Amino acid sequence: MGHDTNYHMTTEEFRKHGYAAVDWVAGYLERLEEFPVLSTVAAGDVRAQLPPSPPESGEPFDAVLADVERVILPGITHWQSPNFFAFFPSNSSGPSILGDLVSAGLGVQGMLWATSPACTELEAHILDWLVELLALPDRFRSTTAGGGVIQDSASSATLCALIAARERATGGATNREGVRRRLTVYASTQGHSHIEKAVRIAGFGSDNFRLVAVDDALAMLPDALDDAVAADLSSGHTPTAAVATVGTTSTMAMDPLRAIGEVCRRHGMWLHVDAAMAGTAAVAPELRGFHEGLELADSYAFNPHKWMFTNFDCDAFFVADREALVSALTILPEYLHNAATESGAVTDYRDWQIPLGRRFRALKLWFVIRHYGAEGLRHHVRRHVELARRFASWVRDDDRFELLEPQHLNLVCIRHRDGEEATRRVLEHVNASGAYLTHTKIPDQTLIRMSIGGTWTELPHVERAWRLITENA
Amino acid sequence: MGHDTNYHMTTEEFRKHGYAAVDWVAGYLERLEEFPVLSTVAAGDVRAQLPPSPPESGEPFDAVLADVERVILPGITHWQSPNFFAFFPSNSSGPSILGDLVSAGLGVQGMLWATSPACTELEAHILDWLVELLALPDRFRSTTAGGGVIQDSASSATLCALIAARERATGGATNREGVRRRLTVYASTQGHSHIEKAVRIAGFGSDNFRLVAVDDALAMLPDALDDAVAADLSSGHTPTAAVATVGTTSTMAMDPLRAIGEVCRRHGMWLHVDAAMAGTAAVAPELRGFHEGLELADSYAFNPHKWMFTNFDCDAFFVADREALVSALTILPEYLHNAATESGAVTDYRDWQIPLGRRFRALKLWFVIRHYGAEGLRHHVRRHVELARRFASWVRDDDRFELLEPQHLNLVCIRHRDGEEATRRVLEHVNASGAYLTHTKIPDQTLIRMSIGGTWTELPHVERAWRLITENA
Repeated sequence: MGHDTNYHMTTEEFRKHGYAAVDWVAGYLERLEEFPVLSTVAAGDVRAQLPPSPPESGEPFDAVLADVERVILPGITHWQSPNFFAFFPSNSSGPSILGDLVSAGLGVQGMLWATSPACTELEAHILDWLVELLALPDRFRSTTAGGGVIQDSASSATLCALIAARERATGGATNREGVRRRLTVYASTQGHSHIEKAVRIAGFGSDNFRLVAVDDALAMLPDALDDAVAADLSSGHTPTAAVATVGTTSTMAMDPLRAIGEVCRRHGMWLHVDAAMAGTAAVAPELRGFHEGLELADSYAFNPHKWMFTNFDCDAFFVADREALVSALTILPEYLHNAATESGAVTDYRDWQIPLGRRFRALKLWFVIRHYGAEGLRHHVRRHVELARRFASWVRDDDRFELLEPQHLNLVCIRHRDGEEATRRVLEHVNASGAYLTHTKIPDQTLIRMSIGGTWTELPHVERAWRLITENA
Repeated sequence: MGHDTNYHMTTEEFRKHGYAAVDWVAGYLERLEEFPVLSTVAAGDVRAQLPPSPPESGEPFDAVLADVERVILPGITHWQSPNFFAFFPSNSSGPSILGDLVSAGLGVQGMLWATSPACTELEAHILDWLVELLALPDRFRSTTAGGGVIQDSASSATLCALIAARERATGGATNREGVRRRLTVYASTQGHSHIEKAVRIAGFGSDNFRLVAVDDALAMLPDALDDAVAADLSSGHTPTAAVATVGTTSTMAMDPLRAIGEVCRRHGMWLHVDAAMAGTAAVAPELRGFHEGLELADSYAFNPHKWMFTNFDCDAFFVADREALVSALTILPEYLHNAATESGAVTDYRDWQIPLGRRFRALKLWFVIRHYGAEGLRHHVRRHVELARRFASWVRDDDRFELLEPQHLNLVCIRHRDGEEATRRVLEHVNASGAYLTHTKIPDQTLIRMSIGGTWTELPHVERAWRLITENA
């Protein structure tokens, strides 16, 4: 390739080192169970092994890969371990990893349709596939006034939704004048922290963010939402958007979408639905009841990078009216003018997101869906849900522990009946024994969260976690 | 791995398919010159070849990879082609692609130090290496009150800078109250469109965004900045931040950092420096003059994913006072509480960025720097700059064309002396002949931009582009 290959890795070398990297990844996946999930390094341990200055001369690839094993691996918390039950799954898979490899190899920028038509068209198409796979409302299809786009995360999806809502509520004035009015945003007390972060970033201010009360199942109370909106209206504020969550991070609580959607409709508010974790479960018809009423939403997001065997980052974000989003985010400088954009016949995804540039992320999702097929995805989601139900039944049968009911999907939350200290002690013991679970507080009681969704998690791993939980209880 | 491997790609299969994917990428790189750079598909051509519904059953990996070749490849605009001279380079390299492969294989989430210490520590460390490689001010090192972090793009870096600036200017009030005051932001008329986009997103409003006049070299006039700030102060507004650009997207113009920084200091304004494209040139001491005065900046960003052989996304963002950034972006819900965070001894990068989640992007940058060494990076940057100088000299020697002076670094802007139509015709001819260049307008005259920075771009490719430009002129 060319005449001056000084310093470059040639394609022959790339083949050789590429095989070695593939072998290393395969070997890593085969050894996953050998590692304690939570890295045991102390702060600074990894850096202490790195040279203070960058190398003046290049080094052989073998040396770099050897340092991944020697320096990096001890500092890894193994999200792909079958014994990872913390936070939420961030499961990956062979086809996803290889989709990312092909994407990196192509090295394209999908900011405009013209800068790689396949990057835009595959994405629009696969997001339509997701509408079908999850039985989402048709208004989210690209063949209607709506459509889908891949964001890096649910955080960015919510931020985009709030910006579109802000523009709609002010007739386009906010982008010009700034946030001059008190625009209020609503989520339940159980909504994810990224919602408040987005409220701040977009200039609404935390003071204008309302935490709406929840019922015993930790689901938003639509009447409480209605009351909060009424109070803000009577204060002269502008109720702008509500974010409903199906599958809260803390306990997988399910906000009632239809009732919330009706409140939003009545007040002309934007409804964004955050299904980051739970959304994937909708691949199985018997599990998708939590989407009831979703047709009232203006936007919706879920993360294939959580539970759909697709590497981070891959958040699927849908809007019912793409014009609202695009008009809020578009700016077209001269150097981006091109015939395709001016024809109006194409989608330029730069106008659907915060940054300008974008990777070809649809490839990995395409690889995953084609590899597993709809039936493979359903199989594994059902398997994880069944494992969680089994785990919950063990908790119910054990007098020492209390289960948070209702238990939804693949998350089980428990506490020791002896109280806070006992619960904390159990968690510490489990995490010191090679598995990894995390906690939450409802409202001031610690709950251990057992989140099941790893690609390689099987019954024996769940049984082992339960053994670790109970053996010192 | 586990007991139920139904539908999963086994590690044995992963090896086999992984080698095939590596071979495909290597083969793609070897064939780069065979393709017209700009995809020739029409709108909808790619989608038309995709089945309307997702497959019910899984498909063999070979079929998927065959469809990458058959369906995707014709829809690719080849950013890695040696004949790609459009926009800016988004160059990649073997070590970068393999760094991304290892990152995908590890599949970790680096939102907290604890969720993979190596992800955070390698990133902090490599960003310190970049401070040394580019001779950036010491105050951007993680060992001071400052530090670096990888963002997805310069857009997000500027947005983060504006949010930190907003908080500093209002004593922390904006996050609570929203953007209640008229906070003004300044950039030159040549600043990138993402600056105005960030101004809108963060709720400042475009009306509070000032486009500052430039000199004949299209560099910001510090006196004009001073005047604009004075006018806003006298109107009771709050001048909050200036964004200076070294290496504008349009023409690689260089704003004078020291003079701008002095204006900012005088008025207590945040100075963010956007060196997205040009920053990499600072690896060569004789090219880094444009950073003169950078020690007056509060934040700085450049994109290794443009010119440093590192795949998108990889923007290196530095702040002189990390507390300003972190306090503007931090929210710590119960489910993210952990001992390491509470110790205060670690960095949690979730507080340095818009989203919560983050990939292990430092790996590819580490692979690249170790593969090339400082001398390899310098070699190729100098090579690209030398190619641009040669190209500029051909333009100067040709009566039909006019060169935009001063010509900086690896970008050359030219126009046909016969006027708009002739210039446009030349551009269309070149792009119809397999190369790819884009245009800008200064102020209302079209200029063809010749941006040289492809990994595989050599003298013959630049000579061919010149031949295409001149043969129909």
